[in-house]
Amino acid sequence: MFRLNNTIRIQGRRLYSTYEHLSAGKQALISHSGIYPKGFRASGVAALIKKNKNKDIALVVSELPCSGAAVFTTNKFQAAPVIVSKETLAQNKEALYAVVTNSGCANAVTGAQGLTDAKKMRSVMDELVQHPLSSLTMSTGVIGQNLPMDKIESGIREAYKCLSAEHDGGWMNAAEAYMTTDTFPKLRSGEFGLQGSKFRMAGIAKGAGMIHPNMATLLGFMVTDAYVKPELLQKALTYAVDRSFNSISIDGDMSTNDTISVLANGGSDVRIETEGSDYEEFRDRLTAFAVELAQLVVRDGEGATKFVTLHIKGGETFESAKKAASHISTSMLVKTALYGKDANWGRICASLGHSGIDIDPTKVSVTFVPTDGSNRLNLMVKGEPEKVDEDRASEILEMEDLIIEVDLGLGESETKFWTCDLTHEYVTINGDYRS
Amino acid sequence: MFRLNNTIRIQGRRLYSTYEHLSAGKQALISHSGIYPKGFRASGVAALIKKNKNKDIALVVSELPCSGAAVFTTNKFQAAPVIVSKETLAQNKEALYAVVTNSGCANAVTGAQGLTDAKKMRSVMDELVQHPLSSLTMSTGVIGQNLPMDKIESGIREAYKCLSAEHDGGWMNAAEAYMTTDTFPKLRSGEFGLQGSKFRMAGIAKGAGMIHPNMATLLGFMVTDAYVKPELLQKALTYAVDRSFNSISIDGDMSTNDTISVLANGGSDVRIETEGSDYEEFRDRLTAFAVELAQLVVRDGEGATKFVTLHIKGGETFESAKKAASHISTSMLVKTALYGKDANWGRICASLGHSGIDIDPTKVSVTFVPTDGSNRLNLMVKGEPEKVDEDRASEILEMEDLIIEVDLGLGESETKFWTCDLTHEYVTINGDYRS
Repeated sequence: MFRLNNTIRIQGRRLYSTYEHLSAGKQALISHSGIYPKGFRASGVAALIKKNKNKDIALVVSELPCSGAAVFTTNKFQAAPVIVSKETLAQNKEALYAVVTNSGCANAVTGAQGLTDAKKMRSVMDELVQHPLSSLTMSTGVIGQNLPMDKIESGIREAYKCLSAEHDGGWMNAAEAYMTTDTFPKLRSGEFGLQGSKFRMAGIAKGAGMIHPNMATLLGFMVTDAYVKPELLQKALTYAVDRSFNSISIDGDMSTNDTISVLANGGSDVRIETEGSDYEEFRDRLTAFAVELAQLVVRDGEGATKFVTLHIKGGETFESAKKAASHISTSMLVKTALYGKDANWGRICASLGHSGIDIDPTKVSVTFVPTDGSNRLNLMVKGEPEKVDEDRASEILEMEDLIIEVDLGLGESETKFWTCDLTHEYVTINGDYRS
Repeated sequence: MFRLNNTIRIQGRRLYSTYEHLSAGKQALISHSGIYPKGFRASGVAALIKKNKNKDIALVVSELPCSGAAVFTTNKFQAAPVIVSKETLAQNKEALYAVVTNSGCANAVTGAQGLTDAKKMRSVMDELVQHPLSSLTMSTGVIGQNLPMDKIESGIREAYKCLSAEHDGGWMNAAEAYMTTDTFPKLRSGEFGLQGSKFRMAGIAKGAGMIHPNMATLLGFMVTDAYVKPELLQKALTYAVDRSFNSISIDGDMSTNDTISVLANGGSDVRIETEGSDYEEFRDRLTAFAVELAQLVVRDGEGATKFVTLHIKGGETFESAKKAASHISTSMLVKTALYGKDANWGRICASLGHSGIDIDPTKVSVTFVPTDGSNRLNLMVKGEPEKVDEDRASEILEMEDLIIEVDLGLGESETKFWTCDLTHEYVTINGDYRS
């Protein structure tokens, strides 16, 4: 077993200074400290995979064996690290030790060489933690290019030397190494009571484009020092991801690399070994935690100026409500109207009507709910358009945060879905991503 | 029966002069003359529904009874004119006389009042042609606002007085009155041989945004002076639309108003009353004609700088090939890469993998086919990425027209789908559509 190493070795320049150009609202989303799960250390280094020399290799390593679970993209072009991590979990759900991640190159659609490279990433990590088949691998970045394996291998070895249990130098570096087009690192941690004791969770997510998950999503991991039996951990993760990372959309494109994993190392006294109220409390805590991370991804949506909560109510089922939310959240016309602060609610109806779920147009209501607590604004009530006060609509659309409530009027099911607007900046970023 | 009236009364200013700012390529798409089907007259007037005072009421009227067929949007929020035109066709497929269209207001999501208004449009037209239930109605423009019925009614009466069988003053005015965010009128006509005789077709389409049909599409009509039995006309139209208007996408949003109708008045000697080679020739001619009109819509895609043909080959079925094409054509990441002239073909694979069809990633090939006849550029061959000559890729991506060939390697089915890029201008147009 390796020793805890709190030495902070920062690779390359610290990125903090580059966040100063962000809005105050976005700066407030950056974590500056945290209570982290016991027995985990993290690091992030610059291995020069990225042209801009920012950090691009992240490790999280546990000193104790972890139960593990993950959800993966359902894209049929599954990236090599997805295939390899699935294989790892199929053989080992009880004694995992590490998650190794690189940004800058997705190792997706890379044919046979890609698989070889992803396995090599795993074996380098396995060798360092001295446990075979104990590492999950993730990659993010440009599709269709092979990993620079010399940089990857030396980067992993360097990052391993830099592991730290601290916020600065450890976790924050890892979060920075996850970034691609992200404008800020997405790191969260917290401590929670359960079974008369306490446990902790930490998580990192990345993603600002190619975000529209289904079954699984973008790149992220969560770790906890609770012990959770592998099958319960998988069940809780699936539940949580369905209501968090699978309930966000930036641009409707689903990545080839989407992966969310969770490791539970039992470093605390909290133990979840059977279903029941303790399991449910853990699951709901994990869900709330995942929602917080997922919302950070939307807040950093490429070029986004708005954070929009679609609250679909009155659905016949959770699934149909979610399908409607997912469809509306990808409508270019809805998203450009939000950008233009235009209360063009007819586009919301047009998108809902095209979503594929059963609706009765004469029962549908659409409302803007301002996030400052002021009065709601009805746009359509049971299929009949309201005389909309355009000045009031503009007032609400000026706010960065907006809730759009769509009541289907059919049942009791509801869901929340988070999305952003479609802006000139999105087109600029994605018209010129590779260069 | 009303008399043929060739008097041209032009309402408001002629729009031709405003097309001078268009690129030479787009100006070349504007029809300046045509041979039109016998017995049809058309007109377009400005009834001041549009704030900009451009033409907004279009009529096409036949002096002979027409067999009629149509395909409509499958959006569950069906606009009032869609509901009313379906009702008309359910009762009368044999003796239709007119299509009346307004732009500037879609009469969609307008509740009970909307239905009353669409029926009133029909009855005003029916009264003018002196045949009950003989008019199809279409509306396009902003959703969620009621029609200004006084302007609509006087506009229809005025347009009726202006009907003409000529290109200028008749058909061209009608095509202009179809425009919303369109930058040029979409009018086509032609004369074709069949059964040792000749028949003619003419058609008008509109649409530049909210374009991603399914089963039916945008707004357009075709007329012919062949006689075609109603059930064969519907069959031919469904076949044609599936391969034309249903094979285009601009922004992935499906309108509440999509309608394509066809009227056949038998003014020529060509008669199609049974299936067989004559029917098939007519059907294929109608399909080619519809493809031409549909391509005009994509050429005028809001803000578009590229005209892209997605050629999906090697599919197991026509349906699966089309599903893949439809999905790729709506990917914001694919479309922004095309705008940025970035050969980021990994995004094409990611989108294909998310399209929902069965694929085998190791059999998929992706190729850029330049439209100037120069050499093809392989990007991926049977799942393995090629070493791409980026200079050559840039050369191909500089061209306005591009063919992307995706070979699924699974079967013999193929389809072509037409789409455009996603640009800053698209965001500008749709961030501020209503004002």
